[in-house]
Amino acid sequence: MKLTSFEVNGKASWGAVVDGGLVDLGKRLSEFTDLRSLIAADGFANAKAALASAKPDYALDKVRLLPVIPNPDKIICVGLNYADHVVETKREKTEDPALFVRFPNSQMGHLEPMLVPPESSHLDYEGEIAVIIGKGGRRIKEAQAYDHVAGFSCYNDGSIRDLQWATTQWTTGKNFPATGAFGPWMTTTDEVPANSLLTLVTRLNGKEMQRATTDMMVHSIPRLIAFISVFTELVPGDVIVTGTPGGVGGRKNPPLFMKDGDIVEIEVDKVGVLRSPVKAEKV
Amino acid sequence: MKLTSFEVNGKASWGAVVDGGLVDLGKRLSEFTDLRSLIAADGFANAKAALASAKPDYALDKVRLLPVIPNPDKIICVGLNYADHVVETKREKTEDPALFVRFPNSQMGHLEPMLVPPESSHLDYEGEIAVIIGKGGRRIKEAQAYDHVAGFSCYNDGSIRDLQWATTQWTTGKNFPATGAFGPWMTTTDEVPANSLLTLVTRLNGKEMQRATTDMMVHSIPRLIAFISVFTELVPGDVIVTGTPGGVGGRKNPPLFMKDGDIVEIEVDKVGVLRSPVKAEKV
Repeated sequence: MKLTSFEVNGKASWGAVVDGGLVDLGKRLSEFTDLRSLIAADGFANAKAALASAKPDYALDKVRLLPVIPNPDKIICVGLNYADHVVETKREKTEDPALFVRFPNSQMGHLEPMLVPPESSHLDYEGEIAVIIGKGGRRIKEAQAYDHVAGFSCYNDGSIRDLQWATTQWTTGKNFPATGAFGPWMTTTDEVPANSLLTLVTRLNGKEMQRATTDMMVHSIPRLIAFISVFTELVPGDVIVTGTPGGVGGRKNPPLFMKDGDIVEIEVDKVGVLRSPVKAEKV
Repeated sequence: MKLTSFEVNGKASWGAVVDGGLVDLGKRLSEFTDLRSLIAADGFANAKAALASAKPDYALDKVRLLPVIPNPDKIICVGLNYADHVVETKREKTEDPALFVRFPNSQMGHLEPMLVPPESSHLDYEGEIAVIIGKGGRRIKEAQAYDHVAGFSCYNDGSIRDLQWATTQWTTGKNFPATGAFGPWMTTTDEVPANSLLTLVTRLNGKEMQRATTDMMVHSIPRLIAFISVFTELVPGDVIVTGTPGGVGGRKNPPLFMKDGDIVEIEVDKVGVLRSPVKAEKV
């Protein structure tokens, strides 16, 4: 299934993408108040049953897509998880993954503007694969890690580079509102078996800027889940943003930053394309 | 007022410390489901009115104190905010504050054990002053920053040093469960006027390890609020943990880490003493 959160007539709901349209599952399965609560209750069989007889309620272009999970308890982002990106940043590969945090209020959905704030013109893309946690847990074993995954999505970890790099800690540059694009939907694990090889591509104004496959990750998805769950209890709906490959704009010579009018796309096979128009924030 | 969250007979509530006892305001003001919702509604006058005629419901030692705000939307921690700590870490002072994030599930209240996990013996203290946000906002001006503060508390930003320092990003070492002590209560701003000079002291097994005053901060509290609210919208109940002074155990020669049986205390004047017994986690 392809599941996501959306808003129609100002009301938030969640549903499934079927035949290019959206089936409103929030309406049909009112026991689940949002997609996170469906995941928490392991309600995928209910969703599948509700879809069996359903026709789309809305054309996709008639709804506003929200971040796949608008209200995760935690968004944990992985830095330096592809060798070519480690090289371009002139940093060292470390035995442990470098982790930072994004707040949920920095996220937006597919086709929502990614904002260049007035404080900086250094907005950069970072195409990434997002893992959405299903069953929670602490000290999850690597061999069991895929049992804790609900699905996969595309993520653009939009970064304000000068503010990210102003100190050793990246929090400031990674949390501006409307810089974390998450969507357009998650593809559940019944369509993406454990250890599937996924391809990640970033395009800026149609030009390919980043390309990688999951086997190029320094720390694999199971390893990330095992590592993270040592120091924090993962709960359903948590999002692990698994790192960006080489090719970011901020490390080019001269650096390339995004500006009002640009279109940035993140594509992950078995998921789809997450598209963000870039806009200057009006204050 | 001194306000906090607590649990009695397995039920969570919130209240005020009066005459060495606890007045259960959750019971008296049921329109506020928790302390965060009181802050969000700016309900301090209601709390004060309810206290006028109230006698303590419980002796303090008959309740389990929770983190002052158990469920903040965001906990933003400041690194390297006292010159003597910048020096001992051999890092450089930066124009912007270095910020990292703690998840709410890493917190515990006064007298609850601070846990040494089996993965590391490098648990260190960091005495800090916590600022609890009242009125939210974005791009708050430094001159208006104190209007956005609800109160102050003590925080022990317990850190697993080897895991904190294993990569450039500190997230891993700052988020183990039961390492972020927050309490015993918050003192509201009617008792701590804007720009009050506060003294912060850390004691390990009765011995003073850290001492500083707020005028020693590299980035003042108003500057932190102004800076942080540029990149994220602050909401009521958000917690800013304002940094630790020199004297941490991990930078001593030889390093000093906390172990099962230790007692660590953080004292902030006008607030009180936050005490944590250190225990080895049983897995």
